Amino acid sequence: MLISGHKNVGYLTGTLGIEGLALITRSGSFLITDPRFSQEAQSAAGFIPEITKSPLATMRKITRSLKIRRLGFEPNNISYAGFNKLKKGLKGITLIPVSGRVEKLRAVKTDKEIACIKRAAKITLKSLTQVKRFIRPGISEKDLAARLDMALRHNGAEGNAFPTIVASGPNTAKPHARPTARKFRLNDIIMIDIGANYMGYSSDLTRVFFLGRISANLKRAYKIVKEAQEKAIRAIRPGVRASKIDGLTRNYIESKGFGKYFTHSLGHGVGLDVHESPRFSGKDKTPLLKGMVLTVEPGIYLPGEGGVRVEDMVLVTKRGCVVLTR
Amino acid sequence: MLISGHKNVGYLTGTLGIEGLALITRSGSFLITDPRFSQEAQSAAGFIPEITKSPLATMRKITRSLKIRRLGFEPNNISYAGFNKLKKGLKGITLIPVSGRVEKLRAVKTDKEIACIKRAAKITLKSLTQVKRFIRPGISEKDLAARLDMALRHNGAEGNAFPTIVASGPNTAKPHARPTARKFRLNDIIMIDIGANYMGYSSDLTRVFFLGRISANLKRAYKIVKEAQEKAIRAIRPGVRASKIDGLTRNYIESKGFGKYFTHSLGHGVGLDVHESPRFSGKDKTPLLKGMVLTVEPGIYLPGEGGVRVEDMVLVTKRGCVVLTR
Repeated sequence: MLISGHKNVGYLTGTLGIEGLALITRSGSFLITDPRFSQEAQSAAGFIPEITKSPLATMRKITRSLKIRRLGFEPNNISYAGFNKLKKGLKGITLIPVSGRVEKLRAVKTDKEIACIKRAAKITLKSLTQVKRFIRPGISEKDLAARLDMALRHNGAEGNAFPTIVASGPNTAKPHARPTARKFRLNDIIMIDIGANYMGYSSDLTRVFFLGRISANLKRAYKIVKEAQEKAIRAIRPGVRASKIDGLTRNYIESKGFGKYFTHSLGHGVGLDVHESPRFSGKDKTPLLKGMVLTVEPGIYLPGEGGVRVEDMVLVTKRGCVVLTR
Repeated sequence: MLISGHKNVGYLTGTLGIEGLALITRSGSFLITDPRFSQEAQSAAGFIPEITKSPLATMRKITRSLKIRRLGFEPNNISYAGFNKLKKGLKGITLIPVSGRVEKLRAVKTDKEIACIKRAAKITLKSLTQVKRFIRPGISEKDLAARLDMALRHNGAEGNAFPTIVASGPNTAKPHARPTARKFRLNDIIMIDIGANYMGYSSDLTRVFFLGRISANLKRAYKIVKEAQEKAIRAIRPGVRASKIDGLTRNYIESKGFGKYFTHSLGHGVGLDVHESPRFSGKDKTPLLKGMVLTVEPGIYLPGEGGVRVEDMVLVTKRGCVVLTR
């Protein structure tokens, strides 16, 4: 099987950050990369490093010498153009699309991975706590985002897991707002969605703040979102399908009359990617397993008025789950 | 034509950060996105927003009503799996791979884009100048990288253009090193490769520092790299092929006996992506055009000993080029 997904190659070979391909065969596993990463490739335990400026020629050489006739590939992690090059370069070999194998392994975290994710979550919470006092009228969304990002780095993050979202007032009605020059005003609602990267692992956290008085409508929306999140967290345990958790929060929000304002899925796995398998969405029937780490983030967005979202990360345990972002 | 590349969609529609597809037809252009981005989609000048949870169904509806029979797509910006879904969902339409059209537009920068890139470069230089004084024995690669990233953010960057490289001693022999806990020592060579993101645009800069005495070998390598860079910069002007610039520096470094230690291409375009078209590489025959912004970054890496790279960004002008990172 040929592994071409960047994070998948890093996960299997233990060499995050290098650009290359992993070729897994019955007779041995190869890490094919270019001279920029020759030193890193030497340290990939269990992999034979192949340093080349022509990965296709190297693959041809290996597959010929091992008499490989059938080769799996990752249909979601290779471009249409890349696939055609592969097909042409490996003439005579049957290429078989095999989806999500490494993603499935990655979904269940090892103790070491959980420790990194917990650390990333802790850095994020600490940074938010430190910077919270700057949430006052006159400071802009961009300013607060910069302070948050500096705090993340200061507290030990290697970087952001994703670009920090700071939205205020009506901008909070955009679930994925980019920080603007808008300055906070009295009675604004403020939404912060932030995550740290620690040793390659991500965290993801959303909190809303009310700067003064709260409109009755948004207060109600906040209460419903919080209750929906609690319902989800209580229902998460091994064996339950991811889609079921999404469904029960969606039903709850719908029963309160806000269904059409909950415009995204309930959550997603978090690990080397900030969005990874499985997803809390109606389409993902994956049964939850002990060791999975996911976000639970219901939201209600009222166009022109504002939005609320509460997002925490949970770790699926033997009998239920624990919240990593209290 | 269907545009699926994330940055390409952002470039054409002027809505950076949103996830969606641009469908360009003779009868109008559509921005197809999901409800998370419904508000941003309204602001895409010249595009009809299509908010949907099923982009494929929406595309089917549009292409049918416009009687579209042939549709271009971006073979490098769609996965093999994505292409197959498209083929199935748009039965009866001939899909035609069309490479690099938007990338070609993006290669030549507008004045507004150049202003953003210049600002990103300025932020980067300022941050490096401020943090330089911490380059002394005892500070770790990771510590210095954190200080640099905080300075970028403090000086107005929206974030890093890419993860900052700080390498010291033998680690500098890895062109793409990740910062480690290694502490700087007297007589170390230090390599810093850093870039800012400003309004979505990237900068990219590499400098090396010598912390004390310099080995004769590395001093010689540095001199050759610097001379090779100067040769390239003098040769850059509209009409010259990108490959030619790569070739002449490569020949020069080879003539000095270090050819096999220059393990990467000479440079790359910089814009919305930190690596974009064109490339200063033997394979890219693109003739340079006024308004292109590229890096010029020859390097020599001696395994076990250390490496040197000097990287600047240039803007191709009417008769030559200007260095943006003096």
